[in-house]
Amino acid sequence: MNATQIKAAWIAVDWGTSNMRAWAMSASGTVLAEGISDQGMSKLDRDGFEPALLAIISDWMNGPTTVVACGMVGSRQGWVEAPYAAVPCPTLPQGLVQAPTTHPDLTVYVIPGIMQADPADVMRGEETQITGFLARNKNWDGVICLPGTHTKWVHVSADEVISFQTFMTGELFNAIATQTVLRHSIATDGWDDAAFIDGLETAMARPERLAARLFSLRAQGLLNGMQGDTARAHLSGLLIGAELAGAKPYWLGQQIAVIGDSRLSRLYVTALAAQSAPATQVNATAITLAGLMTAYQRLKG
Amino acid sequence: MNATQIKAAWIAVDWGTSNMRAWAMSASGTVLAEGISDQGMSKLDRDGFEPALLAIISDWMNGPTTVVACGMVGSRQGWVEAPYAAVPCPTLPQGLVQAPTTHPDLTVYVIPGIMQADPADVMRGEETQITGFLARNKNWDGVICLPGTHTKWVHVSADEVISFQTFMTGELFNAIATQTVLRHSIATDGWDDAAFIDGLETAMARPERLAARLFSLRAQGLLNGMQGDTARAHLSGLLIGAELAGAKPYWLGQQIAVIGDSRLSRLYVTALAAQSAPATQVNATAITLAGLMTAYQRLKG
Repeated sequence: MNATQIKAAWIAVDWGTSNMRAWAMSASGTVLAEGISDQGMSKLDRDGFEPALLAIISDWMNGPTTVVACGMVGSRQGWVEAPYAAVPCPTLPQGLVQAPTTHPDLTVYVIPGIMQADPADVMRGEETQITGFLARNKNWDGVICLPGTHTKWVHVSADEVISFQTFMTGELFNAIATQTVLRHSIATDGWDDAAFIDGLETAMARPERLAARLFSLRAQGLLNGMQGDTARAHLSGLLIGAELAGAKPYWLGQQIAVIGDSRLSRLYVTALAAQSAPATQVNATAITLAGLMTAYQRLKG
Repeated sequence: MNATQIKAAWIAVDWGTSNMRAWAMSASGTVLAEGISDQGMSKLDRDGFEPALLAIISDWMNGPTTVVACGMVGSRQGWVEAPYAAVPCPTLPQGLVQAPTTHPDLTVYVIPGIMQADPADVMRGEETQITGFLARNKNWDGVICLPGTHTKWVHVSADEVISFQTFMTGELFNAIATQTVLRHSIATDGWDDAAFIDGLETAMARPERLAARLFSLRAQGLLNGMQGDTARAHLSGLLIGAELAGAKPYWLGQQIAVIGDSRLSRLYVTALAAQSAPATQVNATAITLAGLMTAYQRLKG
């Protein structure tokens, strides 16, 4: 692609802990170019954000340029702190914060995250996916599940975020599979659908026995030669099953949408289907861009 | 202590994954000397065990010497594999296995672990503490809790191990406190009794919400300035509470003994007391030695 051909009307940015993604956008919301950087929030100090952004987007700039960013870029350790909105709050973004810049043509707005006082909880980045989902699905009421390192369950009604709850399921999976004795039993890839469903049903039925079921995976490897891919799928089933048991007050009897990485989202949709709870799977990147576009339009409107 | 004064009648060894402890013993079971080594099972290949042992005990040897060892030394990756006994099995040790040695005066016996087919489970080392506890408490029936990296709950009746269940609680605590986002929120030491009890009660009441409660600790640090020692005690309470909920079929209405590290054991005794389940705390080292002594006496008897 010839960089000189791109004239971005504005630039969308999803800036997380580990990575940053940027898109050159047309005024109508078409993606003209995309860039990715490993300069996530955790690797940058406050002065590092502007150069890291310009390294990706400077070729797309033609005079004054507006950037709209979501994610950990707005945390206390980010480029600029964008104070959380408190639930209940509109699904439309409010109170964007301008980040300090030195480049004369660069204006950067950061979308605030959302907090909940009790039970204490926070999100940064997912609020923009919620905005995007509601922009695409007007007047939608129900529960949005956003699986990932920290999976969020979000109750949305009448264009407001009512409440939400974060489960550390993805991070627990990684810590257990790589940092405990189970690292000897869990393959780094591979899968077994039946073992996933079995783990799911076991944990849904007796979620309180999770820590015992985990050690059983080790013992089954030692005694019965359970294979690493089976153990991997079973562990995933156990953890997602325990999460579904805990999140039941959220999803039971509700309309459900699952937004996230497609493979992981499919596991949640499968797991919910096994509980007779049909869920719609939604492409995460498209929804993030729709949310950033909504925020941009509100800035310009 | 002058090493030439020690004449060990036999030598007791507790050889785990990370460390090895050895005791020079009199015929009647008095400890004459003690040694500790960081040459745990995980650091040794098969030929490394004998030199690692002799480095600690050779000064105690006066002619032919019998060593009785328990723990991971008898695992497949250990000095010699001592095949598991299967439950139900006697609390007295059976089927000790002799390890291959080159030193002409050294005879080493390894105590087998115990396995359970369904739910799959294994122990190595704890069986010797059970032997020791029963030697000190004749005809005792009830449930023995052995807290640690992998906490065991063991049902003992009529001098047999009937069934057991391992919970990975200690290892989960370490993995969560050091390998997840909670590492920013959890102090490496410090304590808060009220936070421990609160975590305990929360997890006992709703054990399935564990993964959500974990993230709440992070959010409470961000939003409410929860202190690291409070978060540490609360995490411990959550994990032990979830374990007690899962182990309830073991401890409910039973006589209970807790054998392990004294600080950790006290937490379990406190937690059980909060459930109106009184438990007796037992010194772990003394009980291990009593178990090794029982095994030695059976060899000689």
